[in-house]
Amino acid sequence: MAVDSSIDSITASGAGQARVTRGSWSVAVHPLEELLHPRSIAVAGASGSGGRGAGFVESLIEFGFEGPIYPVNPKYPEINGLKAYPSVRDIPGVVDYVISSVPASQVLPLIADCAEKDVKVIHLYTARFSETGRKDAADLEREVLRQARKAGIRLIGPNCMGVYYPEGRISFGGTMPKESGPVGLISQSGSVVMDIVGLAAGRGLRFSKAISYGNALDFNECDFLEYLAQDPKTSMILMYVEGVRDGRRFFDLLRRTTPVKPVVIVKGGRGKSGTRATASHTASLAGSTDIWETAVAQAGAISARHIEELVDVAVALHYLGPVHGPRVGVAGGAGGSSVTAADLCEEAGLDVIPLPDAIRQELKAQGNPIWDWIGNPADMSIRIDRDSGTGEILALMAADDNFDLLITFVHGHFHGGSDVTAESFIKQYRLGDMNGKPLIAVAEDSRQDGQGTSELMAEVRTRFLDAGVPIYPNIDRAAKAAVKVIAYHRRRLVASG
Amino acid sequence: MAVDSSIDSITASGAGQARVTRGSWSVAVHPLEELLHPRSIAVAGASGSGGRGAGFVESLIEFGFEGPIYPVNPKYPEINGLKAYPSVRDIPGVVDYVISSVPASQVLPLIADCAEKDVKVIHLYTARFSETGRKDAADLEREVLRQARKAGIRLIGPNCMGVYYPEGRISFGGTMPKESGPVGLISQSGSVVMDIVGLAAGRGLRFSKAISYGNALDFNECDFLEYLAQDPKTSMILMYVEGVRDGRRFFDLLRRTTPVKPVVIVKGGRGKSGTRATASHTASLAGSTDIWETAVAQAGAISARHIEELVDVAVALHYLGPVHGPRVGVAGGAGGSSVTAADLCEEAGLDVIPLPDAIRQELKAQGNPIWDWIGNPADMSIRIDRDSGTGEILALMAADDNFDLLITFVHGHFHGGSDVTAESFIKQYRLGDMNGKPLIAVAEDSRQDGQGTSELMAEVRTRFLDAGVPIYPNIDRAAKAAVKVIAYHRRRLVASG
Repeated sequence: MAVDSSIDSITASGAGQARVTRGSWSVAVHPLEELLHPRSIAVAGASGSGGRGAGFVESLIEFGFEGPIYPVNPKYPEINGLKAYPSVRDIPGVVDYVISSVPASQVLPLIADCAEKDVKVIHLYTARFSETGRKDAADLEREVLRQARKAGIRLIGPNCMGVYYPEGRISFGGTMPKESGPVGLISQSGSVVMDIVGLAAGRGLRFSKAISYGNALDFNECDFLEYLAQDPKTSMILMYVEGVRDGRRFFDLLRRTTPVKPVVIVKGGRGKSGTRATASHTASLAGSTDIWETAVAQAGAISARHIEELVDVAVALHYLGPVHGPRVGVAGGAGGSSVTAADLCEEAGLDVIPLPDAIRQELKAQGNPIWDWIGNPADMSIRIDRDSGTGEILALMAADDNFDLLITFVHGHFHGGSDVTAESFIKQYRLGDMNGKPLIAVAEDSRQDGQGTSELMAEVRTRFLDAGVPIYPNIDRAAKAAVKVIAYHRRRLVASG
Repeated sequence: MAVDSSIDSITASGAGQARVTRGSWSVAVHPLEELLHPRSIAVAGASGSGGRGAGFVESLIEFGFEGPIYPVNPKYPEINGLKAYPSVRDIPGVVDYVISSVPASQVLPLIADCAEKDVKVIHLYTARFSETGRKDAADLEREVLRQARKAGIRLIGPNCMGVYYPEGRISFGGTMPKESGPVGLISQSGSVVMDIVGLAAGRGLRFSKAISYGNALDFNECDFLEYLAQDPKTSMILMYVEGVRDGRRFFDLLRRTTPVKPVVIVKGGRGKSGTRATASHTASLAGSTDIWETAVAQAGAISARHIEELVDVAVALHYLGPVHGPRVGVAGGAGGSSVTAADLCEEAGLDVIPLPDAIRQELKAQGNPIWDWIGNPADMSIRIDRDSGTGEILALMAADDNFDLLITFVHGHFHGGSDVTAESFIKQYRLGDMNGKPLIAVAEDSRQDGQGTSELMAEVRTRFLDAGVPIYPNIDRAAKAAVKVIAYHRRRLVASG
């Protein structure tokens, strides 16, 4: 995807810049850049019993973190084959980064130990702070921040899964994809990170960094947004936010980020019951939904209702690149699916223009017997015996300036018998003739047609993705995502003059 | 699913009743009932070359149609291992049902042949009639109807896939499910039948009869609706309609059907481009969408925007049975998914009530350390080490009259390690303690979490379905479907006094 990576307008703001000398250059480095490249990681509260503390150690081993990993637990001599230490202060080498899996009551002593070891950042997986709604827990949370500040230690969390940074070989989940990609993710919820990364992986997307930050006691959504905005490895930013600590700074950052990189946001806690849930989840105060939506739109960010829609938009941003208008050509449906495709595209805000006369004349010149019948959507139901029908129309539409975007169908039951291979299947779409025109393929996820074509379809999907064509499970979701991406690029074009 | 099968109010209407004497009883039989139980089927235009004509013969063989199957084609002595006949009139035995796969130009001679053989019904797969927009083709279509009427032959189609009737061993697709079920389907589009049957099969639904009727030249949507309304094997009716030939009769039938059986309808051709597409698909004149929607609602039917939503609603109707109110309990999510669950349920129209105090007191009595923190949605993120957490809350909610409906989450990444089996996985939901309270499970289709849990999840899905718990790929779709079903049952309750 083509995004402008100039970030000059962003680096000057925010959470305090470190200045680092490289050769004769003095470069501003975001504080998170250093913290996310620790020389070593200690996991306090690691255990050998399969709990989360062990999970962090396992995940770091699984991802091949390159520095030393120090499990910390006075009860074990060894955890996951690594020597365990009774406390952080007993670790012989430098400790830059500590993951805290100890109970809330042990966090203050842990900070004291970390202070002694000059730890730079603690990721507090530890929960049961302000989100409990209890006064003593909220008081303890404030004291944790006070002690960390005094010691010069930065905090991620508490009550969060922390960092998934595949290129840096840091992950809180050993089974998450090890490959990196251009998508950045900031989420107040760790399970949402796992959900988004999992859903996105199935759609061909990979991540630069995904950070879950829970109660946002020290680093908050603004800091992470600022960091990913200037991160050259991140070309789009996805966010799941329950509450914003500093609205003015947040929307200011957002406004400066969106001309450079798209930002897609799901707001958790929009209704009465959701707001109740954000309080007990991350102690966030969810504000008015209307004001939120307006502010997000004004800042040029893309709002999504849920994580599936967020991933749909991310997929469109990644694969389609800039789409400059709503005029869509649809080909390859059969009868009713062509009709509903037209309805759903139009309802989403796309413009299903009539088939241009030049294409019809071209079909006539090719001797196509139904040249005067084919429209847009180009229904393929009566061309069932001609494999190349869909590809021919797509190629003609791709060459025609009247279309901004194309959508085609991938029907397991439609394109022939048992001799079909992924090779022959994909060939009929003539993907080589798309002239760079954005194309979406629609293929249901969950159909069971008894043909045993699921392996074939899985391979077909991979081939579409490899060819840069995103897959959506239905045209409704494809059209809605495309419309959001079109609006984003249009605004960006207008903004850049 | 519990539907009232009394159909007294329906049998008296419509397309002409045959009266049949059974013993001393005289019973009104819908004309389609006889036509759908032919003694033999001939396929005119069958060929050995893998085209559609051969497909019909193959499908009938595959489904084990019990009467003789007669391929008709003067060019072949044998098709699919069956003796082929030069024409219908050359067939030695009785021929009740003919599938026409001949070109449009040969349909009139075919009707003449069929008239001689006392054929009762012709399914015209043959297309290229009025849907072409050409006058000569529309004239031919009218003449086809005239000649068929003269010969006393009823028509299904033209331009349609015809009948899928697994119990009657008739199908136009050899790979469709062979098992029967309670869902009836009427569709102007054959590809939509395949799409709906395929999607529904993946959700555990099976069909009584599914009929694609194309241009509706003779039998139309009213006749099929009337037939399925009185069919004791059909407990709900799904429809895909592009245009209605007789609006007054249609909505009158609909109004009389919905108190007895739910009817879910997708209207194709809602917008400008979709209306263009219906004309070239089935020569239907799509009317005003607003008037349509109002009339459908007034008739007590359920409207769906697309076939995926239609299947979602069918799944809820089938598995949930009557749900009498919107008060939902949600359990088993983790952090952000609980928050967005609350938002999406509320936005769909469900009432995410606060956790009743009695449940909280029960949790306290059980010694649950976070009894005052658990709410509705009941977030399970900090009970990660306790497998039974979700099931405990679900059981308490099921026993509580404050809840009309429960929703739970099925997270592949969440509930434990490699020792998890489908058995142990499903056990944690305590499905035996649901007390008949409707329960929905939410499990993403397309997640790739790299854990290789897809086989396990497939088995888990099957077990949920076997236990009568429907599966939705996200809570947004689950909540929207549930709300439509609640509204249907509420209206039905009000209507029945």
